[in-house]
Amino acid sequence: MTRVAIIGTGLIGASIGLGLREQADKKTIEIVGYDRNSQRARAAERRDAIDKRENSALAAVADASLVVISTPILAMREVMQEISSTLMPGAVVTDTGSTKGEVMGWARELLPDRVHFVGGHPMAGKTEVGADHADPKLFDGARWVVVPTRQASQAAVETVTGFAAGLGARPMFMDPDEHDAYVAAVSHLPMLAAGALFRLTHDSEAWPELSMLASSGFRDTTRLAGTDEQMAHDIALTNRDQVIHWLQRYRGAIYNLEDQLSNLEGDEELLEWFAKLNFDYLGFKEGQIGRVEIDQQRELPDISITDMFMGGALADRLRQLTDRARETDPNRRR
Amino acid sequence: MTRVAIIGTGLIGASIGLGLREQADKKTIEIVGYDRNSQRARAAERRDAIDKRENSALAAVADASLVVISTPILAMREVMQEISSTLMPGAVVTDTGSTKGEVMGWARELLPDRVHFVGGHPMAGKTEVGADHADPKLFDGARWVVVPTRQASQAAVETVTGFAAGLGARPMFMDPDEHDAYVAAVSHLPMLAAGALFRLTHDSEAWPELSMLASSGFRDTTRLAGTDEQMAHDIALTNRDQVIHWLQRYRGAIYNLEDQLSNLEGDEELLEWFAKLNFDYLGFKEGQIGRVEIDQQRELPDISITDMFMGGALADRLRQLTDRARETDPNRRR
Repeated sequence: MTRVAIIGTGLIGASIGLGLREQADKKTIEIVGYDRNSQRARAAERRDAIDKRENSALAAVADASLVVISTPILAMREVMQEISSTLMPGAVVTDTGSTKGEVMGWARELLPDRVHFVGGHPMAGKTEVGADHADPKLFDGARWVVVPTRQASQAAVETVTGFAAGLGARPMFMDPDEHDAYVAAVSHLPMLAAGALFRLTHDSEAWPELSMLASSGFRDTTRLAGTDEQMAHDIALTNRDQVIHWLQRYRGAIYNLEDQLSNLEGDEELLEWFAKLNFDYLGFKEGQIGRVEIDQQRELPDISITDMFMGGALADRLRQLTDRARETDPNRRR
Repeated sequence: MTRVAIIGTGLIGASIGLGLREQADKKTIEIVGYDRNSQRARAAERRDAIDKRENSALAAVADASLVVISTPILAMREVMQEISSTLMPGAVVTDTGSTKGEVMGWARELLPDRVHFVGGHPMAGKTEVGADHADPKLFDGARWVVVPTRQASQAAVETVTGFAAGLGARPMFMDPDEHDAYVAAVSHLPMLAAGALFRLTHDSEAWPELSMLASSGFRDTTRLAGTDEQMAHDIALTNRDQVIHWLQRYRGAIYNLEDQLSNLEGDEELLEWFAKLNFDYLGFKEGQIGRVEIDQQRELPDISITDMFMGGALADRLRQLTDRARETDPNRRR
C-alpha cells in the first residue's frame, strides 16, 4: 500500500485528497493528513478527504512515498525544516504554493538529498477556504505548473505530472522565475487590482449607496478581494518585485485611460479602443489561448474585426458622435 | 388594451419584453418593438419578447401608453427627437441608460410637455448582448434607479416604479447627479479597471504563456472587458468627469499598494491590510449593504474581526514573519 501525506488540509489539500480517493481505493493508497489547525484537519477527515489525521507533520510523512505540502507559502519553510529528518529515502515531495522562487530555494536548502522535490502550482482555486468547500473536480482542466529541481529523478518528475494529470489537471513545465513573473501578471495583479478597487469604494463616504447599486459586474471584478489574507500576504511577500513591477505597469495603463478620456477630440479612438478590447476579450473567452497560428487567429467564431470596423455599425456610431459634437453645448463640460 | 413600445430590442429591451409578457397576456398588453438593426428586432420577435416589429420608432410609439427607450445612450437623443411629435398625450416615457445626467437633459429639451418622462436605470446586465441572451429574470432582486423629472405626474412615476417592481427589481429614487457619481464608482470604474487589466496583460509579449495560466480569478476580474463597446463608449462620454475622477482615485489606491509592498518593514501592516480587506469583503458578500446600524454591523455571521486579530491565527503568522525576517538573507531582496 502506498502512503500519501497531505500537510495542510485546507481547500487545496482536501480537494487533492478527494481527487486521489476517486482514483484508488483504500487498499491501494492510504491518505494521511496533518494540519497545524486541528479543526481544519477534522473537517478534511469528515469530508473523507483524508483517511487518518496525524498529530504532527513528522508522523504524517513517516513511510509516505508522496508528500504534498499545501500550507500557506511561508509555513512551507517550517514544514520542510520539521519533516526533513523523517522523510523516507526516495520519497517524492511536492507543494502547491502560488509562488515558486522562494519555495524552491527552501527545498534546496532544507530537504535531504535522499528525497526528490518537484515544485507544483495548480492554477485553480476559490476564494472560499477550508475542506468544507473542497471539490475533487477543482483541478479539472486547470493548468498545473510543475517545477522540477535538478536533483529530482525522472521518475519523481513523472510521479508529480501523473499525480496532477490524475486530478484532471494539465501539467506544464516552467522554471521558477518564469513562473513567478507570469503569475504576478495574471494572478497576483488581478488579486491586488480587485483589492484596491474594493478598498477604495468601501472606504468612500458614499459606500452605503454604492453598495446598494453594486451589481454582478462589481461583484465579479472585486471577487478576489475575498482572497484569504494569509495567502494574499504570503504571495505579496514571496513575489514582491514582480508584483510591484506589474502594479506600476497597471498604474500606467490606468493613467493612459484617464488621458484618453480627457481628450475631447478622441471619441473615435475611444470607440476603437473599446471595440478592440471587446474583440480581444471575446477571442480569449472563446479559447484563443497559448501560441496561436496566424491563420487560426483570423478565424474567430461569430465575429470579425473587419465587420466591426468597416460595417454599418461603426459608421452609424461615428455619425452620432459627430451630430452630438455639433449639438452639445461645450460649456456643459469642464 | 395597453400598448407598450420598446425602442431598442437588445439584451435589456428584450429582457423587459419577456418579463412584461410573464405578467400579462396578449389581450391585456400589446408589446411592440423597434430596433434600428432589423436583425436585433427579429431576434426579439423570435424570442417572443415583442409581439410585433414596427418599421420605425415613430410607428412603434403611436398609441403607446408606455414607451421604454433601451438603446445605447447616445442613440437615445435621436430617438427622442424622432418620436417627439408622435407621442400620445399623457404617455409615460422611460429609459434604461447607464448614465442619467445627459439623458435627463435631452428629455427636458426634446420631449413635449404632454408626456411624462421618468428616467430609469436597472442595475443588472450581462456582457453578452442581444435578444438571444435575454432573460425575464434578469432584473430579479436588482436595484432599479428611478429619476423623475419635475414635470412627471405622480401617476407617471408610479407607473415606472410599478413597471420596475413588476420585473422583479427594487426601485429606488435618485437625482441624476447623485446617480452618475455613484455608478461611476461601482459600475464604470470596475469596467475600466477590468479593461485596463486585460489590455495590459494581453499586450504583453508573454501573453501566450499568461493566457495559458489565467484561471477563474483572472477571468472574473477582467470579465467586464467584454462589455459591448458602444455601451462602454457612451458611458465614458456621458459621464466623463466622474469617471476620470474615480480613475484618478483608483490610480492613487494602486500607488499606495505599491508603496506598502515596497516597505520591507511593513509585513505586519500588510497582513492586517489583507485581513481587513477580506473581512470587509465577506461582510459585503454576506449582504451587508446600504446603511447598517452600528449594532448590526458587529454581528457578522461566522466571522469576527476580533477573532481574526486577537486569536491564535494572527499570532502564529506574526511569529512566522519574525522568524523569516531573521532567517532570510536581506541581500536576496532588492
